[in-house]
Amino acid sequence: MLRAEGKAVHQCDSGWVPVFVDQEQSISLMSVGFLLEKPDEAVVWRGPKKNALIKQFVSDVAWGQLDYLVVDTPPGTSDEHMAAVDALRPYSPLGALVVTTPQAVSVGDMRRELTFCRKTGLRVIGVVENMSGFVCPHCTECTNIFSRGGGEELARHAGVPFLGSVPLDPELTRSLEEGRDFIQEFPQSPAFPVLSAIAQKILNETPAQLS
Amino acid sequence: MLRAEGKAVHQCDSGWVPVFVDQEQSISLMSVGFLLEKPDEAVVWRGPKKNALIKQFVSDVAWGQLDYLVVDTPPGTSDEHMAAVDALRPYSPLGALVVTTPQAVSVGDMRRELTFCRKTGLRVIGVVENMSGFVCPHCTECTNIFSRGGGEELARHAGVPFLGSVPLDPELTRSLEEGRDFIQEFPQSPAFPVLSAIAQKILNETPAQLS
Repeated sequence: MLRAEGKAVHQCDSGWVPVFVDQEQSISLMSVGFLLEKPDEAVVWRGPKKNALIKQFVSDVAWGQLDYLVVDTPPGTSDEHMAAVDALRPYSPLGALVVTTPQAVSVGDMRRELTFCRKTGLRVIGVVENMSGFVCPHCTECTNIFSRGGGEELARHAGVPFLGSVPLDPELTRSLEEGRDFIQEFPQSPAFPVLSAIAQKILNETPAQLS
Repeated sequence: MLRAEGKAVHQCDSGWVPVFVDQEQSISLMSVGFLLEKPDEAVVWRGPKKNALIKQFVSDVAWGQLDYLVVDTPPGTSDEHMAAVDALRPYSPLGALVVTTPQAVSVGDMRRELTFCRKTGLRVIGVVENMSGFVCPHCTECTNIFSRGGGEELARHAGVPFLGSVPLDPELTRSLEEGRDFIQEFPQSPAFPVLSAIAQKILNETPAQLS
């Protein structure tokens, strides 16, 4: 999505140098993908090895001064999640952003994710509903392909903020596929104002010393 | 999806009795969900505990005579996948059915899944492309919301059979949400002939002693 495939991670005195997405080095990345010799290689690792690498990604990368560190996890409540929460606890993380699709099977997974946050003492910034409704580009009628409202219902039920519903937009998929800048190219997308509002709500949560 | 939420697993002389979906006991289920006291409980387990339960689900459940045992895994190539492959190896499994959505990030994950199958000696039955195009119910125009063709390309690249592209259908989601019988109620769905054809191809793979 960020056109970083095939980039390599180097070593410096203060640790691994992350991969920079742009000239200005405004976004730096670290991923196990950068450490593999071939992109199709499978990381057939059991928990302990994954946990060790996640810890290293926090402690052994020369991140420098960051405004935000975003950790994108798979769904679930297992090794990856415990390792990330443990490794970040000394840094008092802002919290978890819980993303669900609207349908019941997905909301059920996220209910368990919220229980995990409570058990591990991780604050929940809020819930986002993704893939929420599709406006046909041919006739402009909206269809709720994956049902609708599950995310909002989940947030209300759990007593956490609901941050917004992001509609399906083929232009967003295409931008990500082709590594194009969605924000620059599709300001008229129905997903755009929702994503902006969600980002703004998270920015408003930022501790005073960062702003 | 199968209206089995809240059902409990009982113990008999030959092991755990699975949950039956219908009166005829034609489908029996086992899931960690049946072993939890509350449905929102998070299974905060590290790998070894998950591995032990997956082994038990194969060896300690009174499955009886089965035509097919379907193991639905999350995406990935970690503990769950290794444990399932290890536990089922003595039973010579038919193989892995690899399901992807069309876009590049998903296909990339599935390329690594195919590498995992090769490394662990698990045969690949074929690749299915899910969420492949959406026919608007209002104007009947098709939009490739998540791109298109990634699954077929993946199968060709890996030299494994491509079994079909399942279109998005809000009726399928709604049937699953409400626990209704999609096959009975929506035989006119565009997803129906594709799903039937995929099932038939898998049935054709069945070893002679079962048919």
